[in-house]
Amino acid sequence: MIGIVMGSDSDLPVMQGCVDFLQKMDIPYEITVASAHRSPARALEYASSAKGRGLKIIIAAAGMAAHLAGVLAAHTTLPVIGVPVDSSSLNGLDALLSTVQMPPGVPVATMGIGKAGAKNGAILAAQILALADDRLAARLVAFKEEMAREVEEKAQRLVGSA
Amino acid sequence: MIGIVMGSDSDLPVMQGCVDFLQKMDIPYEITVASAHRSPARALEYASSAKGRGLKIIIAAAGMAAHLAGVLAAHTTLPVIGVPVDSSSLNGLDALLSTVQMPPGVPVATMGIGKAGAKNGAILAAQILALADDRLAARLVAFKEEMAREVEEKAQRLVGSA
Amino acid sequence: MIGIVMGSDSDLPVMQGCVDFLQKMDIPYEITVASAHRSPARALEYASSAKGRGLKIIIAAAGMAAHLAGVLAAHTTLPVIGVPVDSSSLNGLDALLSTVQMPPGVPVATMGIGKAGAKNGAILAAQILALADDRLAARLVAFKEEMAREVEEKAQRLVGSA
Amino acid sequence: MIGIVMGSDSDLPVMQGCVDFLQKMDIPYEITVASAHRSPARALEYASSAKGRGLKIIIAAAGMAAHLAGVLAAHTTLPVIGVPVDSSSLNGLDALLSTVQMPPGVPVATMGIGKAGAKNGAILAAQILALADDRLAARLVAFKEEMAREVEEKAQRLVGSA
Amino acid sequence: MIGIVMGSDSDLPVMQGCVDFLQKMDIPYEITVASAHRSPARALEYASSAKGRGLKIIIAAAGMAAHLAGVLAAHTTLPVIGVPVDSSSLNGLDALLSTVQMPPGVPVATMGIGKAGAKNGAILAAQILALADDRLAARLVAFKEEMAREVEEKAQRLVGSA
Amino acid sequence: MIGIVMGSDSDLPVMQGCVDFLQKMDIPYEITVASAHRSPARALEYASSAKGRGLKIIIAAAGMAAHLAGVLAAHTTLPVIGVPVDSSSLNGLDALLSTVQMPPGVPVATMGIGKAGAKNGAILAAQILALADDRLAARLVAFKEEMAREVEEKAQRLVGSA
Amino acid sequence: MIGIVMGSDSDLPVMQGCVDFLQKMDIPYEITVASAHRSPARALEYASSAKGRGLKIIIAAAGMAAHLAGVLAAHTTLPVIGVPVDSSSLNGLDALLSTVQMPPGVPVATMGIGKAGAKNGAILAAQILALADDRLAARLVAFKEEMAREVEEKAQRLVGSA
Amino acid sequence: MIGIVMGSDSDLPVMQGCVDFLQKMDIPYEITVASAHRSPARALEYASSAKGRGLKIIIAAAGMAAHLAGVLAAHTTLPVIGVPVDSSSLNGLDALLSTVQMPPGVPVATMGIGKAGAKNGAILAAQILALADDRLAARLVAFKEEMAREVEEKAQRLVGSA
Repeated sequence: MIGIVMGSDSDLPVMQGCVDFLQKMDIPYEITVASAHRSPARALEYASSAKGRGLKIIIAAAGMAAHLAGVLAAHTTLPVIGVPVDSSSLNGLDALLSTVQMPPGVPVATMGIGKAGAKNGAILAAQILALADDRLAARLVAFKEEMAREVEEKAQRLVGSA
Repeated sequence: MIGIVMGSDSDLPVMQGCVDFLQKMDIPYEITVASAHRSPARALEYASSAKGRGLKIIIAAAGMAAHLAGVLAAHTTLPVIGVPVDSSSLNGLDALLSTVQMPPGVPVATMGIGKAGAKNGAILAAQILALADDRLAARLVAFKEEMAREVEEKAQRLVGSA
Repeated sequence: MIGIVMGSDSDLPVMQGCVDFLQKMDIPYEITVASAHRSPARALEYASSAKGRGLKIIIAAAGMAAHLAGVLAAHTTLPVIGVPVDSSSLNGLDALLSTVQMPPGVPVATMGIGKAGAKNGAILAAQILALADDRLAARLVAFKEEMAREVEEKAQRLVGSA
Repeated sequence: MIGIVMGSDSDLPVMQGCVDFLQKMDIPYEITVASAHRSPARALEYASSAKGRGLKIIIAAAGMAAHLAGVLAAHTTLPVIGVPVDSSSLNGLDALLSTVQMPPGVPVATMGIGKAGAKNGAILAAQILALADDRLAARLVAFKEEMAREVEEKAQRLVGSA
Repeated sequence: MIGIVMGSDSDLPVMQGCVDFLQKMDIPYEITVASAHRSPARALEYASSAKGRGLKIIIAAAGMAAHLAGVLAAHTTLPVIGVPVDSSSLNGLDALLSTVQMPPGVPVATMGIGKAGAKNGAILAAQILALADDRLAARLVAFKEEMAREVEEKAQRLVGSA
Repeated sequence: MIGIVMGSDSDLPVMQGCVDFLQKMDIPYEITVASAHRSPARALEYASSAKGRGLKIIIAAAGMAAHLAGVLAAHTTLPVIGVPVDSSSLNGLDALLSTVQMPPGVPVATMGIGKAGAKNGAILAAQILALADDRLAARLVAFKEEMAREVEEKAQRLVGSA
Repeated sequence: MIGIVMGSDSDLPVMQGCVDFLQKMDIPYEITVASAHRSPARALEYASSAKGRGLKIIIAAAGMAAHLAGVLAAHTTLPVIGVPVDSSSLNGLDALLSTVQMPPGVPVATMGIGKAGAKNGAILAAQILALADDRLAARLVAFKEEMAREVEEKAQRLVGSA
Repeated sequence: MIGIVMGSDSDLPVMQGCVDFLQKMDIPYEITVASAHRSPARALEYASSAKGRGLKIIIAAAGMAAHLAGVLAAHTTLPVIGVPVDSSSLNGLDALLSTVQMPPGVPVATMGIGKAGAKNGAILAAQILALADDRLAARLVAFKEEMAREVEEKAQRLVGSA
């Protein structure tokens, strides 16, 4: 089970690709909202209880001074994946630095800013779970081949249209 | 009583000017270490109990993905002053953005990066306390005049040496 | 009484959330326009007379080379809160650095860029006033609980819609 | 088995903390040098054969236009952890963006820049392995408690010295 | 023969000016899609076989952590021209740094971000080919004169309209 | 008469090249210290009285949130030249943006950061005065020729040493 | 006579405020297009002949790697004012740094990015000319008072509307 | 024949690796100093006469507002390679943007900042010349293999020392 946590429900459109990929890979997940700043007790409770409730990995998405992933990581030894969201005037650079520049001792596996990072968060989670799940591993290999094939097809179409 | 919290004891040289100014203004303070990431329970406990223990203001200094001030602010309604510390390769820009770009609802009164910000954190704290303390207010006025006088003297010396 | 000063009347939409929060908390305020550069005498006069006129805190919003908060802080020992406004091509980074990187001696309590910072400026002002006003302090505690509840409700709705 | 790959042997001092943590946690690892640009065949071969050789996770450290982690991730479905190294005049910002801003489809679990990120890469690897290793999980919990205790002790010492 | 490679077919509008200039100069070219991350084998094969297939120069366009040009350059000794594409929230700064900051040993001739860079990539390719092609060299001189004339005409029209 | 104003006497080494050039060109100057924040009355008085005291141009050097040039420009219609000083961890980027991004209505003629900008501030001042001083204009032409000659000589020496 | 030079006729809307202010102040000007890169001979000729043709000041506007102002300054001892234009994906930061960071010896009086800088370029030019033109000096004083009055009126209206 | 031009003789240590590589490849070169700003006539003359004097490629190194490569490119249709030098407080970011962000029509083949870029400039020049020189092409292939072998050896030594 993957736990997806968003700092705000306005982050949902950004995280849709994350949800979609987990569904495509048949990975069970839950999704919720918890703010490191506006509902810190909820965030703390979520992280502290995550392992006991059977979660394997937490994916946390937040913008601005994006502390969510780091705060969750402070309260669990599960892998925490951070997705910086571009929700201020600074193009997500604030969220990226706030997520990735963690002090030694408490890592956050940081993805790229926004939708690309959201999808990649799901893929990384699948890669981690696949270490103990051969069928999932096979699905990931197939996905990788599919991506290469898609590029190939686009290249063909380009030649056709040229 | 002012509470100074540092994310690491290595921040102490940066915060010395903060301590010195509070002493100069005869403002009682306590100083401690608490990491938002490595000792989150301690940070939470500090902020949650701050008001009850008679603290008026918290000054928090941290570097990198500097979540400390924001995490403290999440657990108290006391004013929280944040001092970004330059302790990574990014010159403190990471700490600055992580401290200042708080989401609506949970402010951190952010100072400049490093020693200048550390001293200014103490001055801001004094300005806040002075709203209810006329003697402190008078001391701040005197300090302001002293600063102007110092500039004046430096200007005189410059003329003398020219 | 809180004094809100904007560098330009075009900053008003950004500052609306600041005004709204003060009203919600029943905190009296005045709002005006004064430019550090185009009407420096007015800015100086505003800051110099602020304490005498009964102001407790000044909230200053400005964009570009945002000197307004710093210039006001130079002329008063009241706490000055700075809100950087994103009004140039540089996304407010210019206003942020111009507001926050004050030299030692003259602090500006800097908020995040734009609307988030504007609302937070009002909340910080309320937190400061609440040090001497138990009813306001109680309202801030209630506001904090309300924020946490709102997150909780959004999380519930998310489950419902999933 | 963890595979550590560095873009250059000059990255070894940066990665020492990574090696140390894996040793402390009794996690077997191998360490080598492979450049995405100067020895691309070697990098490709390393990533392609990693799973077959029994590797679980790859940790890749590189500076400048740090393509190493991304290139390895392109050739394996194992989790790839990227450590941006500060080895140009741009303070590691080039390495950070080159590592983290991966296109959708190929994630790199990016750590902070330099030594902090290097140690955190090892911790994240341990967290991943611990999902299937209860003794390692226990060691990570102990490590987390140890970190909190160290902060506590530093705080005590600070009081003692004050 | 020039080989144009795009990391994604969505980069085609950006690269149109590149194609147009090559056509204007009567320089034969091929254009395709290959991703350093999603179809690495294809990218590798493209670069490795380029010289044998008679290509003289490769022009590679990519966004985000733009590794494409660097990866192609790693597998060929032909000149590789890189065009950073602005396709993330960071305005192409990520693509620029990922393309230009190559380690010593493997150069990428980097152009400006986006459409300006795309056209310039074609011009640089023409300048290189013109070293061994006097008619092309003459066409480039004519193009340079044409540019100067266009500026002249715009200046005339400005006077006329003033 | 040129007025040089520094935000701090620690800016003097940076401004030495400015002083030296004015002396070399036989341009009378005065140099003083005035802080926009720590001695605002002094800064205001300086700017307001500048024209009456016979100053033609003001050169202002300051670091961090460098408001000095802008504040002086707000109080005079004389040309104000700003020299951003690198005196914080942000490499002078804060001082540059604080000096150059002036709102419409109040220009600051901004130079590059640090010593290069300091010398150029003096040259610009000389260029302005030379509009009404043919002998100074001739000296500037000679200085320009001297610079070209120096480059020429360096080129010769390079050939000699090769 | 002021010479306005734009790197491209597409910069005209940005420079309109510059033209308007010069007209308002009754300052004669000419406006033209010359590119440092596409029509370098024209740019060189413009700068070299400027003084002889009676120009007093050159205002140069350009975007991207904005070399125009610097190139003009290299060929004249007249004051050159640079206006960085935001015409790439980098928000004008490229144009700002390319304009302001001139090496010692050749200053460019740099304005802020875009329309604010364009208007300020005209004001600075007027301030320079006013050193030898008392009527223009008086107009500038009046303009300064007018700005202050406008702020005052906006402040009044704000009170009225509140 | 390759022409190396430096904006200042202080750039020589940065460019040493460029010279060394050309010598290693037996490529004839000349090296000189010419400043776009301090000796513009010399720079112009150099670029205008380059082709006639038998030069094939120009490599230009400059720092700050690095216009040199762009100015040379404006006056020749030969390929111009630009090496941004880190010689200001901004870590070479100013030089990079000033070199790479050329307007459409006038490309500069931009290398990374500093020594890595200097060496790569020589390699790119060699790659261009090798298009018409099979022995040079063979040498470049050998150099590429040598680089890969060196990485291999470093990897062996690492195993040996572990």
